[in-house]
Amino acid sequence: MALENMILPRTGIGMDVHAFAPEDDPQPLWLGGLFWEGEQGLSGHSDGDCVAHAAADALFSACGIGDLGTHFGTDRPEYAGASGVKLLGEAARIVRAAGFEIGNVAVQFVANRPKFAPRREESQRVLSEAANAPVTVTATTSDGLGFTGRGEGISAVATALVYPVAASSHPGPAKGAPHA
Amino acid sequence: MALENMILPRTGIGMDVHAFAPEDDPQPLWLGGLFWEGEQGLSGHSDGDCVAHAAADALFSACGIGDLGTHFGTDRPEYAGASGVKLLGEAARIVRAAGFEIGNVAVQFVANRPKFAPRREESQRVLSEAANAPVTVTATTSDGLGFTGRGEGISAVATALVYPVAASSHPGPAKGAPHA
Amino acid sequence: MALENMILPRTGIGMDVHAFAPEDDPQPLWLGGLFWEGEQGLSGHSDGDCVAHAAADALFSACGIGDLGTHFGTDRPEYAGASGVKLLGEAARIVRAAGFEIGNVAVQFVANRPKFAPRREESQRVLSEAANAPVTVTATTSDGLGFTGRGEGISAVATALVYPVAASSHPGPAKGAPHA
Repeated sequence: MALENMILPRTGIGMDVHAFAPEDDPQPLWLGGLFWEGEQGLSGHSDGDCVAHAAADALFSACGIGDLGTHFGTDRPEYAGASGVKLLGEAARIVRAAGFEIGNVAVQFVANRPKFAPRREESQRVLSEAANAPVTVTATTSDGLGFTGRGEGISAVATALVYPVAASSHPGPAKGAPHA
Repeated sequence: MALENMILPRTGIGMDVHAFAPEDDPQPLWLGGLFWEGEQGLSGHSDGDCVAHAAADALFSACGIGDLGTHFGTDRPEYAGASGVKLLGEAARIVRAAGFEIGNVAVQFVANRPKFAPRREESQRVLSEAANAPVTVTATTSDGLGFTGRGEGISAVATALVYPVAASSHPGPAKGAPHA
Repeated sequence: MALENMILPRTGIGMDVHAFAPEDDPQPLWLGGLFWEGEQGLSGHSDGDCVAHAAADALFSACGIGDLGTHFGTDRPEYAGASGVKLLGEAARIVRAAGFEIGNVAVQFVANRPKFAPRREESQRVLSEAANAPVTVTATTSDGLGFTGRGEGISAVATALVYPVAASSHPGPAKGAPHA
């Protein structure tokens, strides 16, 4: 079949949820790679940036090389408190080392706050630089329903496309290259 | 790398949630581009058609050009009460104007009702015509759990693939065209 | 446009949710195609394996040929109690019979338990064999929020890529084949 001679994309998916820290425990909010002044932060082993985490998990998912827990879990104390941007950058490095190129990543988060629109492009720029690939971010609410509607936390869902290239491990013309 | 000479798809994702209107406030139900007679409707700035909205948001997400709020938000009174079909058609137009072709959109909604199977193909036809691209729709329940299980609302999640073509903005043979 | 001469992937999405069976009704847990000894099972018309079900639904979604209910619903008693692995294998067969080849499927589930990491690769192997295509599986929690956080059930979300090939129904060189 002709598909055998093509470099085919692989899709991946990742969700991440973090609860807001309790009101009597003020925390900084990091979301979409950005610091949000005056907003209550999220709980978490790291900075709780569920947008960056979902993006990283979608990349791992597309490659089939584990998930956030595999690479940055609580048994990896060197990542305790690590920023979402750092984790996304590290995830992109791991994915490329495993022989994949990144097509793009798209993330949407669901939350009552913060107001995202004014900083959407800034967030996309920071995350795209971290992944060295296009990362888009969108936002919505859940119309007052569920834990996001009650303001208990933020959820994010991401998809990613990656391409198995692995040129370095295949001498000669890469199998699957359409123009070899 | 060979990928540089290919038109690569970009993936996007979109979720949308709408609550059912209160029982003492009868509303028409619009879902998947169809009117559902005898069913209580959803609340919303527009017609509450979360299937059409999730589809539109997945398209915007794939392109990185904002989201439903950016294009049809409450600060755009001309879209107040607009149908989901109209918003999806407008989203497809915006996406193409931004230089992307649409591959396909796939939407799944989670709800106890309405019974979707008898009208699934009709819904797919109406939404595909609106987007001028294949839109598939599927349905499931959440086994009695969460706000969809309690019948408080409907959630929908969509993925989309788009292709950056933008031939008009690149003089000479389009970069990335595999058959130029 | 050059895209007309390419075999383009189609994306699909599928979510599935199953509640844990009541404590006074011990059930075996099947998840990700594996039996989990000593864990309380999920309710459902079939074995409740929401990972396998989401994967199957994402495949159907990508092809636009209905959903789990269409093919394996309660009006199909021959599938009552069928394993998730069997349903996924059958879904892959249906998808190929409809003229599509499968690129890959990626599934993530959200649950407090079971502890998935030690058996992730085993799960991926079993599901990939069932679909005869790469199926990746990842896991996360919802940070104590929502029905998954309260341990009421497990949700799974999947994406899939398929390719319309349909060689058998098109005499002569397949339309869309880049190397015909």
